[in-house]
Amino acid sequence: MSQVYNFSAGPAMLPIEVLRRAEQELCNWHGLGTSVMEISHRSQEFVAVAAEAEKDLRDLLSIPENYKVLFCHGGARGQFAALPQNLLGDKSTADYIVSGYWSECAAKEAKKYCTPNVIDIRVETEGITRVKPMSEWDVSSEAAYVHYCPNETIEGIAIFEEPDFGDDKIVIADYSSAILSAPIDVSRYGVIYAGAQKNIGPAGLTVVIIREDLLGKAHPHTPSILDYTVLAQYDSMYNTPPTFAWYLSGMVFKWLKEQGGLQEISKRNHAKAELLYHAVDNSQLYINRVAPQNRSLMNVPFQLANPMLDDQFLAEAYEHGLHALKGHKVAGGARASIYNAMPYEGVKTLVEFMADFERRNA
Amino acid sequence: MSQVYNFSAGPAMLPIEVLRRAEQELCNWHGLGTSVMEISHRSQEFVAVAAEAEKDLRDLLSIPENYKVLFCHGGARGQFAALPQNLLGDKSTADYIVSGYWSECAAKEAKKYCTPNVIDIRVETEGITRVKPMSEWDVSSEAAYVHYCPNETIEGIAIFEEPDFGDDKIVIADYSSAILSAPIDVSRYGVIYAGAQKNIGPAGLTVVIIREDLLGKAHPHTPSILDYTVLAQYDSMYNTPPTFAWYLSGMVFKWLKEQGGLQEISKRNHAKAELLYHAVDNSQLYINRVAPQNRSLMNVPFQLANPMLDDQFLAEAYEHGLHALKGHKVAGGARASIYNAMPYEGVKTLVEFMADFERRNA
Repeated sequence: MSQVYNFSAGPAMLPIEVLRRAEQELCNWHGLGTSVMEISHRSQEFVAVAAEAEKDLRDLLSIPENYKVLFCHGGARGQFAALPQNLLGDKSTADYIVSGYWSECAAKEAKKYCTPNVIDIRVETEGITRVKPMSEWDVSSEAAYVHYCPNETIEGIAIFEEPDFGDDKIVIADYSSAILSAPIDVSRYGVIYAGAQKNIGPAGLTVVIIREDLLGKAHPHTPSILDYTVLAQYDSMYNTPPTFAWYLSGMVFKWLKEQGGLQEISKRNHAKAELLYHAVDNSQLYINRVAPQNRSLMNVPFQLANPMLDDQFLAEAYEHGLHALKGHKVAGGARASIYNAMPYEGVKTLVEFMADFERRNA
Repeated sequence: MSQVYNFSAGPAMLPIEVLRRAEQELCNWHGLGTSVMEISHRSQEFVAVAAEAEKDLRDLLSIPENYKVLFCHGGARGQFAALPQNLLGDKSTADYIVSGYWSECAAKEAKKYCTPNVIDIRVETEGITRVKPMSEWDVSSEAAYVHYCPNETIEGIAIFEEPDFGDDKIVIADYSSAILSAPIDVSRYGVIYAGAQKNIGPAGLTVVIIREDLLGKAHPHTPSILDYTVLAQYDSMYNTPPTFAWYLSGMVFKWLKEQGGLQEISKRNHAKAELLYHAVDNSQLYINRVAPQNRSLMNVPFQLANPMLDDQFLAEAYEHGLHALKGHKVAGGARASIYNAMPYEGVKTLVEFMADFERRNA
């Protein structure tokens, strides 16, 4: 089998070193004679795994002490419901910034619990999409919080500005597809959350980083598995957590530290994205329709100028070991997700294939 | 390393054949050059895994065609909130039968959404607990449904009677720690649900089997990840499911079929439980306080007549490769969970150790 590069948007490529380690110890973890997925979440062995994963995540993101880290069941969609139920308090509205598919989904779910102030920040000019700068976001003083998505996985639209709406404004960010791709100033946020299946680990786990003063306000109807106060009180073990996903995520955190941390991984992510966008911009066949200042470093969607070539492109790419390049069904075309675990070599192989494909189909 | 038997209540022992297969293909699943946990849940490869797991589960439990099978995020606690939100309709009460810790937790969570009619069916006589027969359960005609737990993991209390409350009564059963341990007549239930981490697979997945006519009644406030109608409509892929847990569960279903299905596994479970209860009943040191007709075949709690020996018992058992025998913190003493994956040999090793320990500490 030749080398495969998997550009899936999530579940996504994991560091091969992490997978190999998991493989080695799958049936006999730490010499216990059992798999890590067979042991009790309350055993001292697993509690140590859980605590170390949290510590490494805190180190990587420099999470301040007045923030709790929760390891929750479910994906970001669960949080779409959890956030308003936990944070509205006596308010009846919250600002929902829409920059793409997922931030729109978050706003839709919030409608179950409040009347969201939906603010679409996308501007299309001559087919190119950009988003308005934060200074132009029409946030409301009545809102319990402002929610936005710094990286839209499907459209490949990123917001790199750091939020600053004054001390009173609670900022919530869905970092599902960009967390751990670069340093974040956590202190600017009330809540940062992320489904694991892009840059953290396997699907079925969500990490929530929440400022402690925001706990204690859950609506009485909040399901206990989505109640941040309960989760914080029980160290994310009010019910059995997804232990294997937590364990693997911990290994990904260790791997990130071994790579040099988020400054270093951010450099690599910039280099990968530049290589790919450069290839797109210098071709006649591939088109990315996002303004340069909002181009995602994680998800690079591109259309083929001749959509009749889409299927051939995807099939030949697959034959070259370049997997899962099909664009999301709402976007079409192609998309390369180049998360932390994607090596530079993978992107290089992709751009070489793209150039060759273009030559052969000019 | 000598053979280890893991008596954990959940996460619990998995069939070693399943773990070995997962180990072999962890980094290169089906020759794809990627791990199964790295591929998209919407890829044709994973959709096939998902469909086959459902088919095998349907075969094992003879699930009628008018039932949907959902593979949900979270554990049974998530369902404690999902059930009333999905099934109350315009009713304001539901019957909650309490036979132990978990059925009581379900009733508590239901209080967020209705006024449950809580019916404690435990009867203690001379220190021995039994539960009342179903004919004596004081169910209410106003209740939207009756909820009970056929196997209480902590107390080791089982209800073997099959429910029959008339055609109009919707019966819901939390089968977390007994599903797939024996055949079930699914048609007697409105909903059967089970956290995966005992008899299905790793933690982080819950299986819900629901009669189709019960769909479509979710309260508007129901989080979409807990909305059965949405989950059914999207084949449990409204959001990214816990794919690795789903894949592993599918392998457990295949393993069960290879063992001869649920009739055969039920025979083995009876043999294991009889061996262990016989050892307890024929000792002066070990005590089980559940009436014979309500003794769980999956979870066997036992106290030591001299609790001063608890720590020594657990430590020596561990040295003999008998892991995770400590009783739940609310029950104390010891507990042996002997799910499907626990071989007869494991129980035999345990009872031999117990007899030897008793001799040495008489």
